Amino acid sequence: MTETRPYVDWKLVNDFMIDVFEAYGVPREDAAICADVLLESDRRGIESHGCNRFKPIYLDRIKLGTLKPVTQIEILKETPTTVVMDAHDGMGMVASHKMMTMLIEKAKTYGMAGGAIMNSTHYGIAGYWTGMAEKAGMIGISGTNARPSVAPTFGVEPMMGTNPLTWTIPTDEDFPFNFDCATSTIQNGKIEFYERMGKETPAGLVVNRKGETMTDSGKILKDMRKGQAALLPLGGLGEETGGYKGYGFTTIVEIMSAALCGGPFMKDLNGVNEDGSPRLYHLGHFFIVINPEFFMGLDTFKKTAGDICRALRASAKAPGADRIYTAGEKEHEAWLDRKDKGVPVGESIQKEFIQLRDELGLDYHFPFED
Amino acid sequence: MTETRPYVDWKLVNDFMIDVFEAYGVPREDAAICADVLLESDRRGIESHGCNRFKPIYLDRIKLGTLKPVTQIEILKETPTTVVMDAHDGMGMVASHKMMTMLIEKAKTYGMAGGAIMNSTHYGIAGYWTGMAEKAGMIGISGTNARPSVAPTFGVEPMMGTNPLTWTIPTDEDFPFNFDCATSTIQNGKIEFYERMGKETPAGLVVNRKGETMTDSGKILKDMRKGQAALLPLGGLGEETGGYKGYGFTTIVEIMSAALCGGPFMKDLNGVNEDGSPRLYHLGHFFIVINPEFFMGLDTFKKTAGDICRALRASAKAPGADRIYTAGEKEHEAWLDRKDKGVPVGESIQKEFIQLRDELGLDYHFPFED
Repeated sequence: MTETRPYVDWKLVNDFMIDVFEAYGVPREDAAICADVLLESDRRGIESHGCNRFKPIYLDRIKLGTLKPVTQIEILKETPTTVVMDAHDGMGMVASHKMMTMLIEKAKTYGMAGGAIMNSTHYGIAGYWTGMAEKAGMIGISGTNARPSVAPTFGVEPMMGTNPLTWTIPTDEDFPFNFDCATSTIQNGKIEFYERMGKETPAGLVVNRKGETMTDSGKILKDMRKGQAALLPLGGLGEETGGYKGYGFTTIVEIMSAALCGGPFMKDLNGVNEDGSPRLYHLGHFFIVINPEFFMGLDTFKKTAGDICRALRASAKAPGADRIYTAGEKEHEAWLDRKDKGVPVGESIQKEFIQLRDELGLDYHFPFED
Repeated sequence: MTETRPYVDWKLVNDFMIDVFEAYGVPREDAAICADVLLESDRRGIESHGCNRFKPIYLDRIKLGTLKPVTQIEILKETPTTVVMDAHDGMGMVASHKMMTMLIEKAKTYGMAGGAIMNSTHYGIAGYWTGMAEKAGMIGISGTNARPSVAPTFGVEPMMGTNPLTWTIPTDEDFPFNFDCATSTIQNGKIEFYERMGKETPAGLVVNRKGETMTDSGKILKDMRKGQAALLPLGGLGEETGGYKGYGFTTIVEIMSAALCGGPFMKDLNGVNEDGSPRLYHLGHFFIVINPEFFMGLDTFKKTAGDICRALRASAKAPGADRIYTAGEKEHEAWLDRKDKGVPVGESIQKEFIQLRDELGLDYHFPFED
């Protein structure tokens, strides 16, 4: 992929984000966690959850009061293998970091651990949390609810979030098996991308109130804002191509994210009150950690997982297809491509960075200013 | 649905299956487990995994020597929260029953439990095992590998099984949330159904060696037997409609079913040697049990799970759609319809039952003989 955006040194962006978060009231140690989560998304080439979200999803919400910079974590329940937290509308990334640190310790002793967080906020890429387990030699599973945008099979109303059901699994390769994506066929960000490219959204991804799939990207975005269009679950419209299966996965995440911690769900996660005023998000997440040492051992596990990935990649390709990928491979290659170059920073983010620096009187100079 | 097949009393079929299994060398207590698993499928209206499989998938394989009627369960590893078993090619249903019984006990004490079985055989509907957890007030998760039939995204070769990733979740309703299906868009059985009906298989479900989707149901079945056609993962062909997500879910199950127990996977599960002679299946399964009492309690959990299901069903329907279902609802309604009537038994199964009875000299009279 040819990159036209200028690269900015990883450490520079990281330091800048930490300083800005701190200026917004986030304690420095917490700010370091949040910056790392956002940059991990850029490291993996997942542009939708990286520094593009720094201002709109985090800083603006802190200003608005729907995200509290100081995270008061209350442990509602703890047992040898489980933890339930109330994040009290603080930084979801800070609560999730504390959660995964605790669960990994528990899984070291007990082999299995599970946790849930209520009254949280956007926790970044789910794969960051499952990746913490993987770095400790364990399997991580996580999901989160989100603002309703997905319709159930045979339905047309946005009821559930795009609800990732994320797994990171250790392998003997240079990178783990990392499956981190929404359980809908598509996300808002991809439709915005199609619109910017002047492209139609492929059929079977979005449904209107008449139960028909929509392809006009601009109209989709407009109608979605009015609740008159909804994303379809993985598998598409109706039952014939398995749409009820994607619907099932989305529902699993909706239930697990709210029921284990007794938090809110679906329409209560809209982020706005009936009068249109902003509301606290009160998101919920869940986490599962499995330690292969309590089964047949980590080495056995990694070897088998790696063998499976290698065999898949080596299998017969469709004519015209260069490669078969396994989950996490593209993200690993994005990192290899970027690690020595830095974060590609597009124009709108450049403007945000400059504006934030000037607003806060911080002493940074970015290469794209030259 | 109008039922043209005669109904046979549940107890009669159950007793008959137990007696037949016993005559085939399965210990009576194990036979009772196996009959219950097969009939649970019929109770739920899942015709593909019920008494239609009694003879071809179990009895015939016992005769052939690829399924051992006496299940020698070896516990390879046990910790307070985990179990790994070798089923030594015995009845997968018997090993799975023992596994879930152990895991439920562990989850009562520790909140979380996980298990894996190697050298197993077909374990029936995955939802039976997750349902055991649900009946104990817990969340059950399970998956199994299977004979390779699914191609990876951009691939055309059957590499992985239809690999269900099954969850049963307690609710405060009369029935649980029960999500039990293959991670491919479609299974063999459904294509056989389309062929019997003289119907085309919808596009986007099966791929040929040219990387094109196939719709001729007869040709699909023929080509799949030769390994020249493969099922597509949930989400369909390529990446545009999310096929890589279904591919990810299928791979997760492939890894979890083999790597935790160190068992075989993919092509090694073909069931035939290179010379075409039958081979032991050596399947692998995995199981996770989560006890909501170690989170915010079972009642809280069930209420939230039920509220989510009810809200989904009550949401705006597509014009022409009568109902929105939640996973497990159709199965529950099948049971309500059948519980007083019995098992619907079609002609081919009637013949198998009569033949088995006569072969074994058992004293049964079936209503369809009148």
